[in-house]
Amino acid sequence: MNPIENVETRLFNVPLVEVLTDAKHGDHTHFELVICTITLAGGQTGTGYTYTGGKGGQAIAAMIRYDLAPFLVGKDAAAVESLYDEMQWHVHYVARGGIASFAISAVDIALWDLRCKAAEHPLWKMAGGARDRCKAYAGGIDLNFPLPKLIKQTEGYLAAGYNGVKIKVGQPDLADDIERVAAIRAAIGPDRALMVDANYSMTVPEAIAAANAFADYNVLWFEEPTIPDDYVGYGEIADATGVPLAMGENLHTIHEFEYAFRDSKLSFIQPDASNCGGITGWLQVAALAKQHGIPVCSHGMQELHVSLVSSQVDAGWLEVHSFPIDQYTTRPLQVENHLAVAPNDAGIGVTFDFEKLDAAHASMTPR
Amino acid sequence: MNPIENVETRLFNVPLVEVLTDAKHGDHTHFELVICTITLAGGQTGTGYTYTGGKGGQAIAAMIRYDLAPFLVGKDAAAVESLYDEMQWHVHYVARGGIASFAISAVDIALWDLRCKAAEHPLWKMAGGARDRCKAYAGGIDLNFPLPKLIKQTEGYLAAGYNGVKIKVGQPDLADDIERVAAIRAAIGPDRALMVDANYSMTVPEAIAAANAFADYNVLWFEEPTIPDDYVGYGEIADATGVPLAMGENLHTIHEFEYAFRDSKLSFIQPDASNCGGITGWLQVAALAKQHGIPVCSHGMQELHVSLVSSQVDAGWLEVHSFPIDQYTTRPLQVENHLAVAPNDAGIGVTFDFEKLDAAHASMTPR
Ligand SMILES: [Mg+2]
Ligand SMILES: [Mg+2]
Repeated sequence: MNPIENVETRLFNVPLVEVLTDAKHGDHTHFELVICTITLAGGQTGTGYTYTGGKGGQAIAAMIRYDLAPFLVGKDAAAVESLYDEMQWHVHYVARGGIASFAISAVDIALWDLRCKAAEHPLWKMAGGARDRCKAYAGGIDLNFPLPKLIKQTEGYLAAGYNGVKIKVGQPDLADDIERVAAIRAAIGPDRALMVDANYSMTVPEAIAAANAFADYNVLWFEEPTIPDDYVGYGEIADATGVPLAMGENLHTIHEFEYAFRDSKLSFIQPDASNCGGITGWLQVAALAKQHGIPVCSHGMQELHVSLVSSQVDAGWLEVHSFPIDQYTTRPLQVENHLAVAPNDAGIGVTFDFEKLDAAHASMTPR
Repeated sequence: MNPIENVETRLFNVPLVEVLTDAKHGDHTHFELVICTITLAGGQTGTGYTYTGGKGGQAIAAMIRYDLAPFLVGKDAAAVESLYDEMQWHVHYVARGGIASFAISAVDIALWDLRCKAAEHPLWKMAGGARDRCKAYAGGIDLNFPLPKLIKQTEGYLAAGYNGVKIKVGQPDLADDIERVAAIRAAIGPDRALMVDANYSMTVPEAIAAANAFADYNVLWFEEPTIPDDYVGYGEIADATGVPLAMGENLHTIHEFEYAFRDSKLSFIQPDASNCGGITGWLQVAALAKQHGIPVCSHGMQELHVSLVSSQVDAGWLEVHSFPIDQYTTRPLQVENHLAVAPNDAGIGVTFDFEKLDAAHASMTPR
């Protein structure tokens, strides 16, 4: 056995180029990146991470430092799934989701990095191995963009090689949402994929009205129409409209995913390995998705999820998120023939450029 | 308006006199107390708090310091319910339960302390005003106690004036649980209340077998037989056995309580204001309980919950928990004629003895 010797945690605030807005979280000026590096007695290192929209990073770092690291030191890093369960129980009283899910995710991803490096395999092989590439779409955080700017952003996505585009909806007036959806459908033509995302800003009746309107523009899915807690409400929207629904970025425990699969009549599921328990948690959701015949997609951190989505037989779409974490790694996301290509290096394939992160962090005034 | 000027957060590790064990969280050597004091521009102060079983305290303190405090400063402290909603949305992406629920709880309780002081009323009046006292039972964390010690502890509870006693169950062998339940029923006689608490250590079939066995000893309730996430499983246990079920200490969002009321066929609900959103969150659960005709009880921090449980028309039982937070205040819990008596001072009626807390904290070696 090669025990864990050290767990180091770093927090970076990374500014966004411009303020990005959605219907429920308001303005995003930056994202937080919590990076966790595990060193084994034998000297091997593995790096994992999680991110937030600007709040909670200090709490995540504190939980790793004060609660998880002391628990992990001395344990066998190879027993990834067993450590995952033990971490969940270790912090259970203050967990079942929330900050604990983010903290455990960062640690779990670091353990997978060690596992893949030890096996000398890339993540896409170790996580399932179905393919080394997957469908990808560009997801904007653009509720505040005037329509000309929204169209320009979309044209940029197409020029970058994407054949799927997601825009935010949830304007105060549904007519404005419809105008934007119509304009983007016109801009991308009839064959490319168009998704819309309300960030749970609507009631169930509002979402039914919106879904019926969006259906005219052949949306591939309607994401988070209403609060993620209202599993049954999602089922009502699906029944009333027949419009395909997607969610998952706000589900943190396997039980929350179970409720969604049971009650929400989803067409797509979007777990995020940064907040649903890392790679172990993401693969548990993928297995459930397979049982239910639902394609598994992703939310956020495309530089990691490209390997996970690609690895699955029933792969859905990789979200290429507007938090450009991949730009702070040595291998920004690669897109070929509209497909995102997974890294082939041993490990999770995400190597941070700490000089660039330090500079970005330093550029932000302290809060 | 009297805006919030400062939010100060302190974390204390408080040792327990002896190691206390339950079926799922293992050994407890200490508890953590996170105390939050809000100062208004006018100089008024309000103090709130939350606690944990030894993990998560640093993360809670970090969330208050880095995410909630900057948001609160300058806001009107009188708008307690509106601030509650705004805090929930402010940290929503890293929340929906977990650490955020604990952090928001501490802040919300401080805001209620300010509200009650400004109104010059005690909490039991402001929260509902039904009564100034309520039924109370002593809750042991005693799974590791040999039977003679368990009986001795129970006799101590009776001597202290309690006419209700709860013991832990979840021994590896159900026969041992039954022996202990039988012995405690014999020790307290046929008329006093006896509750059992498995801390969700059982599967649904195991819990059904256990409940049927415990029924012979007239248990008032069977608490957390299985994982709190399995709302439907609780309903199955209730249907199969008719034994009254209780839970709530692990439910953190109003939605989780809604699922429990919908699916779990509970006879008692046990929200904990330290982790379900403070006094605002606790009263939301109490209102739901009333709609469902279920008596509202409590978990932990008896020095505060005595006011909340007493205030409700449909009051259940106050748990007098084995984490003696009340012993670190200027008014340890008072019991008269088997009833716990709420404090009558303006405010929440919980004033910490910081000298005693500092000494307790200093007595623990750093982790
Ligand atoms: Mg989304
Ligand atoms: Mg309990």
